[in-house]
Amino acid sequence: MKILNFILAESALELIPKSLINHPAILNYAKKRGKKPEQMLLDRSIHHTAMRNLPNAFKRGRPDIVHFTLLNILGSPLNRKGMVKVYVHTIQDKVIDVNSKVRLPKNYNRFIGLIEQLYEFKKVPPKGEPLLTLKDQNILELIKEIKPSKVIAFTTLGKPIILQKVCESIVKEDNPIVLVGGFPHNHFSEKILKASDEKVKVYNEALEAWIIAARVIYGCELALGINF
Amino acid sequence: MKILNFILAESALELIPKSLINHPAILNYAKKRGKKPEQMLLDRSIHHTAMRNLPNAFKRGRPDIVHFTLLNILGSPLNRKGMVKVYVHTIQDKVIDVNSKVRLPKNYNRFIGLIEQLYEFKKVPPKGEPLLTLKDQNILELIKEIKPSKVIAFTTLGKPIILQKVCESIVKEDNPIVLVGGFPHNHFSEKILKASDEKVKVYNEALEAWIIAARVIYGCELALGINF
Repeated sequence: MKILNFILAESALELIPKSLINHPAILNYAKKRGKKPEQMLLDRSIHHTAMRNLPNAFKRGRPDIVHFTLLNILGSPLNRKGMVKVYVHTIQDKVIDVNSKVRLPKNYNRFIGLIEQLYEFKKVPPKGEPLLTLKDQNILELIKEIKPSKVIAFTTLGKPIILQKVCESIVKEDNPIVLVGGFPHNHFSEKILKASDEKVKVYNEALEAWIIAARVIYGCELALGINF
Repeated sequence: MKILNFILAESALELIPKSLINHPAILNYAKKRGKKPEQMLLDRSIHHTAMRNLPNAFKRGRPDIVHFTLLNILGSPLNRKGMVKVYVHTIQDKVIDVNSKVRLPKNYNRFIGLIEQLYEFKKVPPKGEPLLTLKDQNILELIKEIKPSKVIAFTTLGKPIILQKVCESIVKEDNPIVLVGGFPHNHFSEKILKASDEKVKVYNEALEAWIIAARVIYGCELALGINF
């Protein structure tokens, strides 16, 4: 393995959808932030009431999952050695390409501001070498583009297997993709399950995306014998 | 090992200090939040300018470090099995006792609100079984109270050793304490270094507290053979 391709898939990250931009709570929040509703990220912890009638709401509006997971990956030795490539695929079929050198804001509100800027300009910073870029792409197109030797999805629907065994097989791959769900509840869509060569379950309860991410990265370092 | 005692030590968590409560930027922010300055947490990402003349400022005002680290620990299988006891020791010698069953807010602003409530009432929720409690205690008193068999500090001042070897020796201990710095820059104070039986360096650059936390927890699970 030269590069671990890590896709946070069907992530609960999106701008406030059109159906909600006239909701009083959303308008109020937009006014407070001095932004248009359609320029702001959907966030369940703020827009809970407005989201009540949104389809598939339980899989939406959780930018914090993306934030934590990226922080766990980007700060790792494996990434610092240039051996991780992270993509955030969203539930609306956008893909954020994350430059492994990016130093993300640790503060959540600044992270939100940055991602909103990304949705507006399609890249940040708008000038110079882009650290984050955003494009329209579905997960099958993204997987095809990476040309993986194997696609491994972490899901409680998968076959039970010890995580460290999974990591040992990942690092033997030429160009592996790891898929972890960037949403709080429920499962990958059928499309993703079908596109996965292996579906693995590494604990008998669902673990949060950032926890899986941290262990997969450390587990691969261990399997590779990377220490210092 | 029955319990891993994890102390996030000298954490950059505190209320806005008295010397800053009349700073215009702080007053402005307090008004916006409808709180008194002295009821709010110091946060470098918001109070950067006001902190300019604060002593030891580079080790202060980073509640996000506490937030991420706790989320990485609390969601882990080791903690779910009741085998982790987390304490947040702060740079002002307060100790937060974290009930391993607490489900912390994932949203940063809600987390801040919760910790501010904790500073006000000394426990949250104010009624019923406390999930977080706050007391005045210095790190030496806390260590003494835990009666550890060994205190292991993670610091780039320590001797280089492979992290997984550290974890293997941790789990052989009766009642180990792991110390990880809850601050963004610089080192543990002399007091902490002296109180540590072992000082270990597990990577040739500083790693963020939440990254170390995730690896120590997973490393101990591996060493214990905990999988499902």
